[in-house]
This record gives sequence, structure tokens and C-alpha cells, in this order.
Amino acid sequence: MKNILVINCGSSSLKYQLINMENEEPLAKGLFERIAIPGSKLTHEPIGRDKYIVEKDVKDHTEAIALVFEALTDKEHGVIKDASEIAAVGHRVVQGGVKYPESVVIDDEVKAEIKKYCDLAPLHNPANLMGIEAVEKAMPGITNVAAFDTSFGMGMPQKAYKYAIPSEYYDKYHIRRYGFHGTSHMYVSHEAVEFANLDKDSAKVIVCHLGNGASISASVGGKCVDSSMGLTPLEGLIMGTRSGDIDPAIVQYICDKENRSVDEVLDILNKKSGVLGMSGGISSDFRDVENAAADGNELAQVALEAFRYRIIKYVGAYIAAMGGVDAICFTAGVGENDKETRRIVGNAFGYLGAKIDEKANDVRGKRTMISTPDSKIKLILMPTNEELAIARDAYRLAKK
Amino acid sequence: MKNILVINCGSSSLKYQLINMENEEPLAKGLFERIAIPGSKLTHEPIGRDKYIVEKDVKDHTEAIALVFEALTDKEHGVIKDASEIAAVGHRVVQGGVKYPESVVIDDEVKAEIKKYCDLAPLHNPANLMGIEAVEKAMPGITNVAAFDTSFGMGMPQKAYKYAIPSEYYDKYHIRRYGFHGTSHMYVSHEAVEFANLDKDSAKVIVCHLGNGASISASVGGKCVDSSMGLTPLEGLIMGTRSGDIDPAIVQYICDKENRSVDEVLDILNKKSGVLGMSGGISSDFRDVENAAADGNELAQVALEAFRYRIIKYVGAYIAAMGGVDAICFTAGVGENDKETRRIVGNAFGYLGAKIDEKANDVRGKRTMISTPDSKIKLILMPTNEELAIARDAYRLAKK
Repeated sequence: MKNILVINCGSSSLKYQLINMENEEPLAKGLFERIAIPGSKLTHEPIGRDKYIVEKDVKDHTEAIALVFEALTDKEHGVIKDASEIAAVGHRVVQGGVKYPESVVIDDEVKAEIKKYCDLAPLHNPANLMGIEAVEKAMPGITNVAAFDTSFGMGMPQKAYKYAIPSEYYDKYHIRRYGFHGTSHMYVSHEAVEFANLDKDSAKVIVCHLGNGASISASVGGKCVDSSMGLTPLEGLIMGTRSGDIDPAIVQYICDKENRSVDEVLDILNKKSGVLGMSGGISSDFRDVENAAADGNELAQVALEAFRYRIIKYVGAYIAAMGGVDAICFTAGVGENDKETRRIVGNAFGYLGAKIDEKANDVRGKRTMISTPDSKIKLILMPTNEELAIARDAYRLAKK
Repeated sequence: MKNILVINCGSSSLKYQLINMENEEPLAKGLFERIAIPGSKLTHEPIGRDKYIVEKDVKDHTEAIALVFEALTDKEHGVIKDASEIAAVGHRVVQGGVKYPESVVIDDEVKAEIKKYCDLAPLHNPANLMGIEAVEKAMPGITNVAAFDTSFGMGMPQKAYKYAIPSEYYDKYHIRRYGFHGTSHMYVSHEAVEFANLDKDSAKVIVCHLGNGASISASVGGKCVDSSMGLTPLEGLIMGTRSGDIDPAIVQYICDKENRSVDEVLDILNKKSGVLGMSGGISSDFRDVENAAADGNELAQVALEAFRYRIIKYVGAYIAAMGGVDAICFTAGVGENDKETRRIVGNAFGYLGAKIDEKANDVRGKRTMISTPDSKIKLILMPTNEELAIARDAYRLAKK
């Protein structure tokens, strides 16, 4: 009873990890693709052993979960004997609304709340619910825990989460800043405080979660005070394909000029913008954009500069919001692998006494103090691990 | 030939000042209201003497300008003998596009550019053009100078002015950050450098132009490096009725929930948002919102907190963008009159050694050093004077 299964459901996919909570190491992980689409495929990976691929069409998430359990308990490729070795299941849920500032054991009320907020996360919440219900059917009686991407953001004060729009829209439609990637921001800021030996009750920490989706959070004593993603994950930083902040009048202007509907324009802002759009269509992958920039492509160079400049401005804004900062952390794909972005962002705060340690910064994906010993701000590469963060919550709540 | 007439034309109004450039003091100022609308009215004010009101319907801006000249040269209420005493006319033009980083003498090419950008300033540029053409008719041969609200913003580098949207939209539609209130930002930053005796080639200056419309700029050595207003004056700070920054997905969400067109939603974001919207409709005037907050109205309190918090975040972002700051200036209605906003914003930068001088800060509308002598950042109340800035440019260009 020391294992936690962590599930992250998309509309036609399901990612999972089975984690041994005694050493916090995964026993197995896997991905189910094309659920309810011909050509369903499960790729199961018992850690340290060969991958096991099952190609069998499944008609829904319930059938997919059943196959995942079969793989987990398979004589040859499995890692546990039976379902009784799983203490609880932790589900990633994107939008938890305003009711849950932390993870909760799922009951009918929680499911109703997740359903209520489907409007605000139309691609994710329905899929998350399907995953929960599939596990309820496949493993009746097991404890299911929801870890919300929005919980961390519930710490924000009103001045940070309220938009300057008619107040009735907050009352009627819950339009506010939520702040996504919350599980990652919480995990990374918590780990950074321990790693840098900061005072956990007062540490001022900024986390730059820089992946294809990117966001920044600020927290004081572990409590989120601001976060760059807003009502949706579109706001804030420049991302792989998302615009981040723009003048809202641009939505109207493009509608008008291109004779498009507002839905079409939002689709462009979500899927064809960011460094992909700025670079003139080169790629949403930062490595490709970096290569193009190195080859002299000016649009790619400006896209990269703008991406880093936006990060610097947000970090500066959050330092002002907190009246100082103890640690700036870098995480997720770009944050963990792109030393140039870390170097440029870190050095931008030289006016506050921050100093990158060039040698220490020459690293990928490993928790590292990348500032010099005399740096006035700790600069930290801290790999994120959302699955572990979810598993910890599920493990803790299942024991209660 | 030492006088400059400065004109600011709206679609049905015309504001003017006649300024004596030897002492830079206005001789007269006035407002023409309801141009081409029944009930036209000119209020002419020779400085230090009684107001002179002319109620006479005019059918267009040309007729209005003719009446302004009559008033300026009127035997009893005038301040000059005839039009020959005016060296040049300076026109405020809102949107100058990307071609004019500074004021220019108006010719056919300049008029064509102003017309070209009417799309981007549909309420202002056509009216500005009408004013120019009215003066050309009324005073043939006089030098007309255009001072653009966007010129100052032309100093921004690409990483600051380009949005992370498909690059073709920049090429086809000139969608970029322009930064408005440029004349004010330029004037205030320039005056602040002199006032605080900073190095004019390297001074890092932030100007908070806080009026019913509000924006922040950052400049290094007099050159703008970033500015909070964007494609339109909607982006950036929380204003009297404008939302400033929001998640662009909110446009779509309100369209959807309220069954409104994108034009209607933009109208709400421009006219019914800001502190007016946040406060639940109390007022767009900060004094009313402050009174309501003092009376315990929670929405008003949050609106004020959010307004100031947004300023603090922008100032922090621009400090990071410049790698430090020498002076933070406050100007326009709220900036010049609201000591509480200046105090809270100034003190937010205590982590950089900024210190408000409470006694010096107890002042309205007068250029004042409001930081203590040992403050590491100069905090300055610097009243704006866009008319004088325009007049200076017109005077200089007319002499060439």
C-alpha cells in the first residue's frame, strides 16, 4: 500500500505513472494514445526494463484504464501483483474553480465542481472527469484524489487575481486570474526553499516554468501572490504557440482585418502565435528557433529576444510585487535545458546583485545552484515533477 | 513671430493654446465644443482676463478655426493683433505610424501618412486631419507641425514593440506596440533629467502618466525603451474606464457568455471597465473611488489596490528591462494630485533604496522632488505640459 498511480487524462489520451512512495521513484510509466479512435495504442514502460506495447482498440477511457491495469499487473511486464498494491489514484485536473486551494479526495461534490468549470477548460476538464469515472469503475472503492492546476493560484490576493472589467463578470462567470501549472509552481518553489535552505515561512520565490506552455509565479512563504497565466493558459509569457499578453484590441483588429470570427482569432492566438508566429512559422520548438537564430534568421532572433525579455519583465514585476526576491527558479523543458535563457535572465538582475555561475549553469535537467556563492539572489535550476507532487498529495490524503 | 498656436482636435471639439515662446507662457487658451452640432460654443480665455464665450453654430472645423482666430485677434478679448504674430501651428496627432520618430512639418506626404493610419485611430486621426486642413484654409502659408502621440514609442526595440502573433500581421497591418501619451512621456522624462540633474545621455527614467487614461514608459538617455500602451490606448495600466491588460481569451469568453459581438465587448473594455467597472460602477474618477473606498466599499478598495499594484508591477518590469532606474516620475491628474498613490508606489521600491519624503510629497501639481535626499531613486512629481512640448517642436521646426 505504498504505491500511488498518477493519471493525466486528455480527451483521447491517458498518461500515467505508478510511483513507490517509500523512495518516491516511479515503478512504471506509460501513455495510452488514440482512445476511442481506431488504432488505439498503449506504450507501457516498467522502469529499467523493455517497453511493452499493446495495440488494441478501446472504445473509451474505462477500457483504456482496464488495459493499463492489465499491463501494471502483467506477469512479464508488470510491476505489481494486483490492484491492492495501489494505495490511491491521483488525477491531474486542470480547472478546479475557486473552491479548492489544495488537492482533495474526490466525491460527488468534487466531481460536480469539476463539471461546473468545464466551460473554463473545455478541452481538459471533461477528459479529466472521464479519467476519474473510468478509475471508479475499474477499481471500485479506491481513493481518488484530484490535484488541480489552479489550486496554487488560489493564494493570490484580490488585487492580483481580479481583472479591471465590470465586477458582475466575476460574480456571474468567475472571470478572474487562476494561474495554471500550479502543481509545478508549488512543487518547484517548495523544493527550491529546501534546496537553498531558505526560511520556509518568509522566502520570496519566483518560479519560471518555461516549457511549450510557459508561466511565472511569485510566492511568499509558499503562498502564491501572483501568476502570469490568467482566466486561461493564454495570458502571460510568450510560449511555443501562444501569444501571451497582447493588447486586447488586437483581437478585434484581426477579426476586422482578416474577416474572422473571435473564435478563429483566439485559435490563432493559441495555436499559431508565440515563437512559432513571431519567427514567421519556423517552429514552436525553442531549439529550432534557436538554431534558426544562430543561422542569422532575424525573425527568429527577435522571437527569442522577445521571449527572454518578457520573462525578465515578469520577474522584475514580481520582485516589485514582493518587495524583493530570495530565489529565482527555472524549470520545465526550456528552463531545464536552455542555459542561454537562464544566463540572460539571471544576469538581467545584476542590478540587484544576482550573478550567474557560468560553469554551474552549464547543465541540463539536474537540480543545481547556478548562481555564484556571493550572488544576492539564489538562481536555481529545479526540474519539475508534477507527477510526484500529485502522488505526494494523493498519498497523504489516502492515509487520513 | 514668437507665438505658437497649439491645436488638439477631436471629432466635434477643438482645444487650443497660444503660447509665447520667449517665456513659454500661454497667452490664451480655449475650447470649441459641438462643432457641426447645433449649439456650438467657443470658450476663449485670455490668460489673466475674463473668459469670452461665443455661441454660434459652425458647420465644420474650418469655420471653428476662423472663430478662434477672431477671438485671438478680438479688440477686447484678443491677445494678438493679427495672424502674422503666429509663427507656426502645432497639431497634436494621435497615431503617426512608424515613419515619424519625432515631430515634422506637415506636407502632403505627412497628411497621407496620417490618413493611412486612420484605421488604427478611427476616433482621433480623422479629426486631427480636419484640424490641419482647417488651419491650412484659414491661414494659408503658415507652417503646420504635427506632434505625434506615437513618436516617442518609435524608440522601442523590436523585442519590446513586437507582439508574439503571426509576423505577417505586423507586415500587413502594422500591428505593434506604439505607446501613446508620447508627448507627455517625452516632456516629463526630459524635464525630470534636468530637474534632478541626471546625465542626459544615460539616465534611466520611468514616467507614470496617471490620468483617466494612464500609461507608463521607460527611457534610457531620452530614448523610449518600453511603454505600456500598445496597438491602442487600451493596453497596460488599469484606467478610469479601460481594463488595461487582460487575458485576451476574456474577449472571447464575454462574447460567448453575454452573446455580444467583439465590437461590443471592446466597447465594454474601453468604456465600462477600469476602476469604474471594478468598483461596481461607482465612478471613473479616482477621487470618487477613493471616497467610496474610505467609506468602506470593498469593491472600491480592491479597485484602488489593483490600480496601484498594476503600476508597481509595471515599474518593476521596466526597472528590470533597463537593469536599474535613476528616477521615477509621476504626472497627469492622479499622478500630480494623489499623494497616496505616489507614496504607495514609491515605497514599494524600498528594496532598491527608494524613500518617499512624506512632507515633500504632500503637494499637488507642482514640480517637486518627493524622495528623501538619501533615496537611491529620485522620486519626482513633474506636471506634464503636452501643449508646451508641442509648441517647442513647432517653434524649433518653424525656424529651420
